[in-house]
Order: sequence, then C-alpha cells, then structure tokens
Amino acid sequence: MSSLSRRSEVEPFHAMDVLAEALKLKAKGVDVVSMAVGQPGHPAPEKVLVAARQALENGRLGYTDALGTSPLRRAIADHYQRRYGVSIDPGRVAVTTGSSAGFNLAFLSLFDVGDWVAIARPGYPAYRNILKALGLNVLEVAVDEASGFTLSPAGLEAAETVAGCRLKGVLLASPANPTGTVTGRAGLKALSDWCRERAVHFISDEIYHGLTFAGEETSALELTDSAIIINSFSKYYCMTGWRIGWMVLPETHVRAFECLAQSLYISPPELSQIAAVAALEAGPELEQVKESYKANRMLLAERLPALGLPLLSPADGAFYAYVDISRYSNDSMDFARRMLSEIHVAATPGIDFDPLDGHRAMRFSYAGSGADMQKAIDRLSGWLR
Amino acid sequence: MSSLSRRSEVEPFHAMDVLAEALKLKAKGVDVVSMAVGQPGHPAPEKVLVAARQALENGRLGYTDALGTSPLRRAIADHYQRRYGVSIDPGRVAVTTGSSAGFNLAFLSLFDVGDWVAIARPGYPAYRNILKALGLNVLEVAVDEASGFTLSPAGLEAAETVAGCRLKGVLLASPANPTGTVTGRAGLKALSDWCRERAVHFISDEIYHGLTFAGEETSALELTDSAIIINSFSKYYCMTGWRIGWMVLPETHVRAFECLAQSLYISPPELSQIAAVAALEAGPELEQVKESYKANRMLLAERLPALGLPLLSPADGAFYAYVDISRYSNDSMDFARRMLSEIHVAATPGIDFDPLDGHRAMRFSYAGSGADMQKAIDRLSGWLR
Repeated sequence: MSSLSRRSEVEPFHAMDVLAEALKLKAKGVDVVSMAVGQPGHPAPEKVLVAARQALENGRLGYTDALGTSPLRRAIADHYQRRYGVSIDPGRVAVTTGSSAGFNLAFLSLFDVGDWVAIARPGYPAYRNILKALGLNVLEVAVDEASGFTLSPAGLEAAETVAGCRLKGVLLASPANPTGTVTGRAGLKALSDWCRERAVHFISDEIYHGLTFAGEETSALELTDSAIIINSFSKYYCMTGWRIGWMVLPETHVRAFECLAQSLYISPPELSQIAAVAALEAGPELEQVKESYKANRMLLAERLPALGLPLLSPADGAFYAYVDISRYSNDSMDFARRMLSEIHVAATPGIDFDPLDGHRAMRFSYAGSGADMQKAIDRLSGWLR
Repeated sequence: MSSLSRRSEVEPFHAMDVLAEALKLKAKGVDVVSMAVGQPGHPAPEKVLVAARQALENGRLGYTDALGTSPLRRAIADHYQRRYGVSIDPGRVAVTTGSSAGFNLAFLSLFDVGDWVAIARPGYPAYRNILKALGLNVLEVAVDEASGFTLSPAGLEAAETVAGCRLKGVLLASPANPTGTVTGRAGLKALSDWCRERAVHFISDEIYHGLTFAGEETSALELTDSAIIINSFSKYYCMTGWRIGWMVLPETHVRAFECLAQSLYISPPELSQIAAVAALEAGPELEQVKESYKANRMLLAERLPALGLPLLSPADGAFYAYVDISRYSNDSMDFARRMLSEIHVAATPGIDFDPLDGHRAMRFSYAGSGADMQKAIDRLSGWLR
C-alpha cells in the first residue's frame, strides 16, 4: 500500500472526536450534555424552516453561481448597510459552504507554499490545520492577560523577530474562540493599518458577530476595503448543519476566488442559500436565543470558578467558557474523556486550541439550553468533589 | 493592496461561467436551454423530498461526524453489497460535501507538493484546477480513438517517459466526462494492478455510475481494496444542489482523511445526508429518469452529426455528447458565447476539458428533458444553417 502525504499529518480536531464519541453514547440512549462543539442548541429560526419547506415544495435544487445566488449576495450586502452602516457592492460577497470553505479559499488564494500566517494561541484549531495542510507556516502568537488576549502590531513584530520570518498574512477572530475576546475598534484599526502598510493580507473572522456581551463589536469592513471578511450562518443564526457562510472580498480579489470556488466547491448547497436569506430576517427570534446565552454565560461565570475551574479569559463574546483545569488535571484530553464517560458531559480539551498550554485548559460551549447548563454544573459539582 | 498567490491562478471552470451567464438571461425571462452543466433536469426523487421535509419538521440540523452519519455510511455500504456484490465495512465510507470535497481530501491526503498525478485529456477540468492549486503536477495523458478514450498502463508509461516524471497517482473516471468512455473490467483491472505494483495511488471517479448505456460498469472496489473510490449523489441521484457525495477508502487511510475533513469541512450538510439515505431507495424513479437520458442520447447521436457536429467519442455513459465544431469554429469559447446569446442554448466549450484541442470541441449535456433537447436541436439547426 502506498503511503499517505506528509501534509495529511494534521492533528485531529479533538472537539470533533469528542462529538463523535458523544453521538455514539447518545445513540445508545445515554443522556449526554453537549458542550463540546460550538453549536447552538436552538434549531434554525422558524423563518428559515418555512423558507426551506417552500423551497422543497418547488422541488428543483441545483448548482448555483459558484459565489452564490444573487438574492443571498444582495441580502448579505443589505445586512452590512443595516447593521454596520457600510455600503458594499453585492458582487464583493462570496457565499461559501460554511466558513470552512471561506478559510480554505482565502488561504489558497492569498498565500503560496512556505508563506507565514499569524494566528492567536489559543485559537480555533482548524486555522492551524488547514494552513499546515496547504503548506503554509503558522506563526502562533501567544495571547494572554497582558496582551488583552488579542493580536497587536507590537505582538506580531515581536513574534516575527523570534521566528525570524516576515508575515504574509494575519488572521484575527473577534469575538474569538475559545477566549471570547472582543477586539475593539481601535485594536482592529491598528492591526488593519499595520497589515495595509506592510502589504500583509488581513483576514477578519467575524463568525461570532452578533454574540458580543461586553465591549464593542466592529467589522473590519467598517475600517478598510482590503481585508478579507469571513462569516457564517452557523453561530448567531443557529444553522451549523446547513453549512452556509460568506466572505466579503476586496473587489480585485473576487474573480480569483470565484475561479477557485468553481473547481473546489462548484457551489454552496442551494437549499441552505435560500434559507439563509430568511435567516437575515429572523432578528427577533435570534435575539431571544442570544438572551438565553447571556443567562448561560452568567451561570457558568459564577459556578465554574466556584468549582475550581476559573475562567482563563473574560468570555466577552462568542459562547465559550475557557477554563483552567490545573487544579484537577494536567492532561486535558484525559480529563475530557473521563468527564464524558463518567458524567456524560462533553467539552473540548484545551489542546485543540493551544498545543503548548492547552493541556491544562478546557472549553465549555454554553450555546445549549439553560437546563443543560444547570445539569452540567450539577454533574460537575458531584464529580469534581 | 497585497497580491494574490501564484497558485490562485487557475483557469476558470468555463461551464460555471456559462451557467452564470445563462442564469442572468433566465432571470431576465429569456427561455434558455441549459446543456452547459452536468445537471439533471429532473428534481431529486420524491422519496428524497419526503425525507427532507420530515427532517425539517424535526427541526434540528447540526454538525455530524466529520465522515458522515452512521445511517448514511451503512446505507452506502449496503449499496455496494446490493449493486456490486462487494461487502465493505461502513467505517471505510466517508461522506463528503459533494465529490468536490472528495477530490480535495484525496489530493491533500495522498500527495505532497511537487508530486505527479495523471488524468485523461479531455477530462473534468476541476481535477486539473484542484491539483494545480494544491501544488501538484498534472500529467495530462491524451486519450483518443486509438487508446479507446481511456488510460492504460502503456499510455501512462509513455507519458511518464515524455514528461520525465514518475507518477504518484492516477485518476480515472468511468463513465468519463466529457467523452462518455466506459472503461471495462479488464481495463480497470490492468490500471489498478499497475498502480498497486508501483505503489501509485489509484483514484476511481465513479460519479457517473448508474448511467452506463453501452459496455460494462465496474467499480474499482470489485477489484481492489487499495483504490480511493469517489462518488456522489449529484448525477444518477439528481441531487446536484444538495452537495452530497461519498468516498470508499482503504482501511488504513480512514483516520488521516477524517482529521483533514474535520478541519476542512467540519461535516457535510445534515439535511442532505438524511435525504441521501432515501435516495438509495429511489431506484424505480431514477431508472425512469435514466430511460429519458437514453432517448436524449439517441436523439443527439443522430441529429448533432447531421448538423455538422460529429461526436468525438462514443458517449457510452454519463450524459454528455462531446462534439467536433471545427466545421463552424476554431474558438469554442466564442462559439459557446454566441450560441448562448443568439439562440439561448447553453453548452460548454471544449477548452474546459482539453486545453490543447478543446478549442474545436463543445460538450452538450443531455441530462435535461426530451422537450429541451428537441428545442435545442431545432434552434441549432436554424442557427448553423
């Protein structure tokens, strides 16, 4: 048998492995509390389901333009006008098969093999894995209390010096996963200016927009036309399983992204595109869901530290509590496995987000129901005693 | 503005550009006959629509295992037993977001930058584009009447010698796009043996299985456990817009593919996975659709040559007529544009499939309705006169 490629040697996305294990237990009838993946417990908004049902009645679902249907691209452009006061040409919107496709297309379109791209550590593991699989060098820049858990020009320059490299790209998520950091307007502007001055590509992951509980939510699109904006209907819009997201691209980049998208994806799923238009009109229902996260966040912020699991970062946005488990374990994967098998609470080991320091951290997603949060806390408090 | 990557300089997938242009005309109310993309005119089978409606009633659609839901993986394994008499472990089935994701995952998992992979010319353009974007060298092996329009060990060895390279992979589609070539059991076995002896990865694209009108339809899985089988619900199952496909992998490869899939795709769309299970039970409806293709194929095989557009290959399978346009034009892109704008018939320029000789060829998809085929022939006969 011939061997696999070197670049296929990426780390597993442990959250997905925990999910697989949790799904196995659930299939056996076990009452698992799922806090492992960043997935809203609430189903897609009623308007989305209605639109999807109607589309099924019409019956025919086919390939669309590689960058998405015109109605969805227009609706997304309108969303920027309404929410951020930014006017953009719908032609700059690229609909993608989840933000996953957005990252892949951005990394392929912007970077060649051997280029260096900076991300925050801790951070979303798929960044690191996709970058590596595409032959790119990942500059993981540690963020902590001192740096406000975010990237900054000074931090990037220091990291460049240590690594002896020159960056071609910077990727920042705000709100961030798993830290919940919300990078404010000034911080975002400093980064975007620094990138523009150095001809460094700036990728702004805004997938947790709409889920900011403290601080100032700014789109990079308010500050610059040269950033790559990546977003999705998975989080705020509760549409994970629909695999639908979008990008906003600099005018000059659209055609190159389109050509790659044609070959790599053909087009995003049409039913999800139709449904996504309706998602942008589901504000009231989604704001109610957000209120439930707010209550979950309060509960966890109070109870987890009381159980000896202090928050490692402020959790201002997104729906994660990233906690220090060092009082109980120095092996987060083992901790996650035992917690799942013994008390049926699924959460994600910190090593997913931070290969260096994540062995003493866990991420709990609080996108589930309030009842589930309470159940998890009860089980944890019995287990950790 | 910083520049784009060298690897983003892939050719457009012209069929998708023609589709975009055709969709624009349709949106203006123009009666376009669509023969450009390989897309069934028939909607997804009724059983699929019923299953999708039920899933929407249940409401919750989320991330699944990265390699797909257990019911779908089992149903696909059963399909191999039923249709090909081959027994496989469902754990070897990887559900993908269309065959597009299958190709991307296979190329990344099997090959490193600089490796050589052989494909047939003419062939599906996304092969070439994805391979190039991933830093791989494409050995395009010309196939013609003499080689039976397919790849063979002798042809591969000759091409290796000319290029001065040593192959790491061979990709063959049977039935093939655009030629319709069906590679029989003996030919497939010769290729698969040759690959195994040389530790070359063999990728068998079986997306047009079920659509063989002449010759012998064999899955590489009947012959070997070391091939990568790629398939999809888009063609025979009429589910293009649902973006759902699958692979069958050698046991040893499953985990590496899974890790990459976790980061690159998270999971395939759940609604499409639920619906796909039902698609595998929609045989009678799908066989009727196939009968309509058979009639379309007869019509085009008779009428296109009579209009001065002789078939370049036998069109034994899939749903394409690949024709010689040299009597009318030496520029297939121009021919496609004029045909669309003047008589509103959309078809794909040969340059998509064959960068060297495709300027004097066009591909017509006959997956539409019989009425559309007749309309296209009528318009063409007026136009070409």
